[in-house]
Amino acid sequence: MNVKEAIQTRRSIKVFDPGHRMSEDEIRTLVEHAILSPTAFNIQHWRFVAVRDPALRAKIREASWNQAQVTDASLLLVVCMDLKAWDKAPERYWRNAPSRVQDHMVTGIRQYYAGNAQAQRDEGMRSTSMAAMTVMLLAREMGYDSCAMDGFDFDAVGRLIHLPEDHAICMMLAIGKRLQEPYPRSGQLALEEVFFTDHF
Amino acid sequence: MNVKEAIQTRRSIKVFDPGHRMSEDEIRTLVEHAILSPTAFNIQHWRFVAVRDPALRAKIREASWNQAQVTDASLLLVVCMDLKAWDKAPERYWRNAPSRVQDHMVTGIRQYYAGNAQAQRDEGMRSTSMAAMTVMLLAREMGYDSCAMDGFDFDAVGRLIHLPEDHAICMMLAIGKRLQEPYPRSGQLALEEVFFTDHF
Repeated sequence: MNVKEAIQTRRSIKVFDPGHRMSEDEIRTLVEHAILSPTAFNIQHWRFVAVRDPALRAKIREASWNQAQVTDASLLLVVCMDLKAWDKAPERYWRNAPSRVQDHMVTGIRQYYAGNAQAQRDEGMRSTSMAAMTVMLLAREMGYDSCAMDGFDFDAVGRLIHLPEDHAICMMLAIGKRLQEPYPRSGQLALEEVFFTDHF
Repeated sequence: MNVKEAIQTRRSIKVFDPGHRMSEDEIRTLVEHAILSPTAFNIQHWRFVAVRDPALRAKIREASWNQAQVTDASLLLVVCMDLKAWDKAPERYWRNAPSRVQDHMVTGIRQYYAGNAQAQRDEGMRSTSMAAMTVMLLAREMGYDSCAMDGFDFDAVGRLIHLPEDHAICMMLAIGKRLQEPYPRSGQLALEEVFFTDHF
């Protein structure tokens, strides 16, 4: 499958085959590619929690308006961000670079994020959302469908996965084998409504 | 090119051939596929501004720490979000659905976002970042490279593109033909540092 076809055929699917098992290799392949996504200053804010324990899945489903894909998907990934990753030994994100470059980047990191909670959160959302899109398109190529979810109690799910206090959840991804064809797209805006030249 | 190869070969490139022209068809193809990305409640918060005017590009470059890719890229997309899209006739996002479904979704939209500025902003960041990743992977398949940018004065660029008051900028994407090979990755975290089972 090429990229164009993956984009065109990816739809949010909520009815998955609960009997399908994704192999460990497949799961690892998805996450190994997720972390090749771009991330500002190479901070790699993303943290992925694969929920395998069926009892934990059931509890997360309760915290997700009882949506069936939470338990029926072959893979449930809670896509999280470390909001303070920028401040945790940032020199490691540039350890392969010349020391001049490393110093420059670490200084830039501190200037960009220190004391700016909204910039920290926005950056985490950007990095983790891009990684999530990478996962969904690769999953499509691997014969899977996905559902990006934010319809759940973020605090409750955070407690269930022991989310550290300086982390946040971006979304959950349910990935599996579809048992239902998607509905027609529910109401696409025309390109002209969302695409501008030079200015609004 | 398949999805896996696009992910593996996409790197952030900052040196582009300033003489390469991207066709209108190519630009349209990128944005037409961007808007197939997932978006919560189908709200489609994304707004894309293609900056074509060379004088405007030069001004944006000044507001971007003079980074050359702003003027040298074949395509400069300012990826924006309408923070209030959820409240602007949301029934249109579900116009193709049965009225029962439409009513349910519109009610859900109001419950989720009304009075919650952080949820509105997080959602915009999620939707637009996923769309940006879609663009970057498709660009790779089309023989282009990209650079996702947040190193610029968001307020200044917002003024230059006449950003509406209830919108925000997520990032800029510079896309073009590379003139320089990427450096080795500067410091990838090990998979084990970012990938967990069941909980942190």
